[in-house]
Amino acid sequence: MAGDALQALAFELLAPDKNDASASGAGMHIPDHVQARLCRLLAKAAGFKGMAGGQAIDLASVGLALNEHQLREMHRLKTGALLEASVMMGAACGDSTAHVWDCLQRYGRAIGLAFQVVDDILDVTADSVTLGKTAGKDAANDKPTYVSLLGLTRAQEYAEQLLAEALKALHDSGLASTYTLATLAQRVVNRKT
Amino acid sequence: MAGDALQALAFELLAPDKNDASASGAGMHIPDHVQARLCRLLAKAAGFKGMAGGQAIDLASVGLALNEHQLREMHRLKTGALLEASVMMGAACGDSTAHVWDCLQRYGRAIGLAFQVVDDILDVTADSVTLGKTAGKDAANDKPTYVSLLGLTRAQEYAEQLLAEALKALHDSGLASTYTLATLAQRVVNRKT
Repeated sequence: MAGDALQALAFELLAPDKNDASASGAGMHIPDHVQARLCRLLAKAAGFKGMAGGQAIDLASVGLALNEHQLREMHRLKTGALLEASVMMGAACGDSTAHVWDCLQRYGRAIGLAFQVVDDILDVTADSVTLGKTAGKDAANDKPTYVSLLGLTRAQEYAEQLLAEALKALHDSGLASTYTLATLAQRVVNRKT
Repeated sequence: MAGDALQALAFELLAPDKNDASASGAGMHIPDHVQARLCRLLAKAAGFKGMAGGQAIDLASVGLALNEHQLREMHRLKTGALLEASVMMGAACGDSTAHVWDCLQRYGRAIGLAFQVVDDILDVTADSVTLGKTAGKDAANDKPTYVSLLGLTRAQEYAEQLLAEALKALHDSGLASTYTLATLAQRVVNRKT
């Protein structure tokens, strides 16, 4: 129920009432068309075509052999969709051209997937203390991961490839200042916890 | 998790993308400012200042003696907030004046509370087959209800009083056509299941 309340709060913060000084998110003065876009992006990313759908596939996949396409699709939904949405919600607050929008979407998808590939790698390579959660849990639970599918070396190469794709997308966007997003991508891939 | 997905879907339906023919709610052509208002109303009514908050109070109240004010506040949040919101979301789709808005809010609050008072009454007066759920559950669970607080007769009188308040609010609104809303209020109070 705390999760239900927090999900509702997310939408409440995205659609603040500018006439209600006590409202959550009051004083943000987000234009109506941006509020609508933000709610749309979050709703899709959180729901059955996003996180909740990916989580359902994840639960249904324990003990099954997924191929790389199925694994990518699951992760794209389960963790990628909300990471991508957080990038696109930033874009929605500005006046992005269709080209910039597409590039940021490529960037968001790449880091969303990279986050999960690195998660799978750390589950194998890190110890529980560093990780802050139990390492080796995926193998113990017989869950399909990028490491179980590709092996550790190819999974690490894939993470680097996704980082390169993310940085390429930023370059292609033609945006003047992509330093923060580039740093974020590097941290996602190079993180140790 | 189905609940998480369904909550997200509700917001997705309220903020359809008019450029995406495959989107849920596509073809609805809801103006941006209405989408934002609808998301805001639903988010508040579903969240910690609405249903989820009321449900939390409900769970925390088992075995406690609530006074009438506390019981009303719990029900106003737990079931009333979303019922009221469903009325106000209709109002938000039109161009209601502040006066009409206030009247519809009074109406929504009255039927929201009436629904719960009647729920408490039916738990005592109906049998499980008619009710479609286990009767007598509230008393068995030692939950505070309008019947335990006011007694059956006064609870029934209170439901009638709330119906009168709802109909008065519709009258005060000056709206030409309130037949459907009036019928709805009567059904809420006179329902047997």
